[in-house]
Amino acid sequence: MKHAFTLATSSRTTTPVMITKLEYDGFTGYGEASMPPYLGESHNTASDFLSKVDLSTFSDPFLTEDILDYIDSLAPGNYAAKASVDIALHDLTGKILNVPLYKLWGLDPGKTPDTSFTIGIDTPEVVRQKVEEASGFKILKVKLGGSNDKEMINTVREMTDVPLCVDVNQGWKDKKEALDMIFWLKEKGIVFVEQPFNKDDRDNSAWLTGNSPLPVIADEAVQRLKDLPDLKGLYSGVNIKLMKCTGLREAWKMINYARSVGMTVMLGCMTETSCGVSAASQLSPLVDFADLDGNLLINNDIFDGVKVIQGKITLPDKPGIGVELTNDIFN
Amino acid sequence: MKHAFTLATSSRTTTPVMITKLEYDGFTGYGEASMPPYLGESHNTASDFLSKVDLSTFSDPFLTEDILDYIDSLAPGNYAAKASVDIALHDLTGKILNVPLYKLWGLDPGKTPDTSFTIGIDTPEVVRQKVEEASGFKILKVKLGGSNDKEMINTVREMTDVPLCVDVNQGWKDKKEALDMIFWLKEKGIVFVEQPFNKDDRDNSAWLTGNSPLPVIADEAVQRLKDLPDLKGLYSGVNIKLMKCTGLREAWKMINYARSVGMTVMLGCMTETSCGVSAASQLSPLVDFADLDGNLLINNDIFDGVKVIQGKITLPDKPGIGVELTNDIFN
Repeated sequence: MKHAFTLATSSRTTTPVMITKLEYDGFTGYGEASMPPYLGESHNTASDFLSKVDLSTFSDPFLTEDILDYIDSLAPGNYAAKASVDIALHDLTGKILNVPLYKLWGLDPGKTPDTSFTIGIDTPEVVRQKVEEASGFKILKVKLGGSNDKEMINTVREMTDVPLCVDVNQGWKDKKEALDMIFWLKEKGIVFVEQPFNKDDRDNSAWLTGNSPLPVIADEAVQRLKDLPDLKGLYSGVNIKLMKCTGLREAWKMINYARSVGMTVMLGCMTETSCGVSAASQLSPLVDFADLDGNLLINNDIFDGVKVIQGKITLPDKPGIGVELTNDIFN
Repeated sequence: MKHAFTLATSSRTTTPVMITKLEYDGFTGYGEASMPPYLGESHNTASDFLSKVDLSTFSDPFLTEDILDYIDSLAPGNYAAKASVDIALHDLTGKILNVPLYKLWGLDPGKTPDTSFTIGIDTPEVVRQKVEEASGFKILKVKLGGSNDKEMINTVREMTDVPLCVDVNQGWKDKKEALDMIFWLKEKGIVFVEQPFNKDDRDNSAWLTGNSPLPVIADEAVQRLKDLPDLKGLYSGVNIKLMKCTGLREAWKMINYARSVGMTVMLGCMTETSCGVSAASQLSPLVDFADLDGNLLINNDIFDGVKVIQGKITLPDKPGIGVELTNDIFN
């Protein structure tokens, strides 16, 4: 990573990823598993999982629903490893049809949102440096839940008046302090608050969402589609990430579910290469907010794909997830 | 129609349909609006609606989501007319890519369900004749809610032991009689009960669904995606029809929503040509039950498309919705 990444609960300088390659009839699809250590997946678990996968019984990569049901059935968990297969499979079928995924899904590439750029918890000097680097972005995501929330926001606000969103990463404890903070944040031009309390703290979440003047968005509290109905009344929106939910197919179902119950929809990512970020970006015309900056936080990207141009996610006119491998780690 | 079609509330011998044709870059997509008179649409309303449509501002038929949002925004209602555009647009993009829709959607054409064949309310002689004609089907749908429900079932059961489902079309009034009837029906090998009470009778529906040993499926009580969250606790399943919900795109979202809240999913149709039925059939690998026999009930089909082979929906290996126009009404 370009900078150490500090959240309310942890700090790290690298994130293990694994790149998955699927081949069929001369075509190649790429996928990625990004595995922040606190989520429990690793190179070992992903290798173990992928060693169980045998796609030879499927006649055709277009049997996407069956193949992904099979992948999901191989073992519980392993969300990122499953996502790597899902992404590679979608990339593969898009390449066989020679069509970008957004086009297969009927989405307008002009409707991609601006992506936020993340400012981690840090000293005012480092925050100022990061905001300076982020001058091309039209929305910033500020990590809160440390000991200096107001200082973080004030430092950012001294330098820019772009919309901000905040991600507390479960860092707040007291509901009344949280609500006071949200009213203060609203005055400072914050547009939503992500995961204020511990993911299992349903009472505080319900109370805060019921009283908050800003959308309250679930991240750690939601893994995949089956979790969404249970969020009713607890959050007003959801942050969907491929690495949490097993990939593009389930992410699309989640977006549609969330839309149909009136939730704010956000699409996020882990620290990952342009492979995972470009895959998620294919869905971004459907969402309200995107936090797809994971590939911009690393120094060793091995894919060329989606770009951020004047703050906006800009989809390549290339088939599948739209990436080219620039450093062929497979050879 | 081959036979007069008698439900709990009405009887008719024809159903007006309108065929919609979309052309782009040398490709042609077909769609259909089927307009049973009691739903309020007609040739006049559909013509008026379609005369408002101007797709010239869209650069590309692959902007499906935008185009269909625009179509939906032109006027309230007009569900079948909207579906005709949705179907034609999907047919068109499938033909441009030279891929059947089921393949674009990642579905296994081997997983299509058996379709039920509908036996309308009639005298025992006519019922026997219809059951005789339906000997190739592996599941029958019996219309109830008239004055002779048990006679209908007994007549069918004298001739066949295939699974039956029943469609009451809002014909029952009393909840305790309804529950007694459902217990009796279960003994007779009925697999689900569709729309027992008036669509607005929420109390009776909730009570019956809570006590019924068979799935209770909403038909008239649900129009489109936005209605689904409100069915919670009132029904255990939903009958999705393209002509009710504005087309394939919304139908797919409805299937995914219903699945994610554990509802039984059924795909139905109106009396329509093989155009509308073949379109709906593309989604059928995703559902529990299909009632896609509308094209088999008419004498004047002008499309060749999906077939029922040994009771099972059999998708053609043709692009888009998979139909050929056999009587070119446009020339």
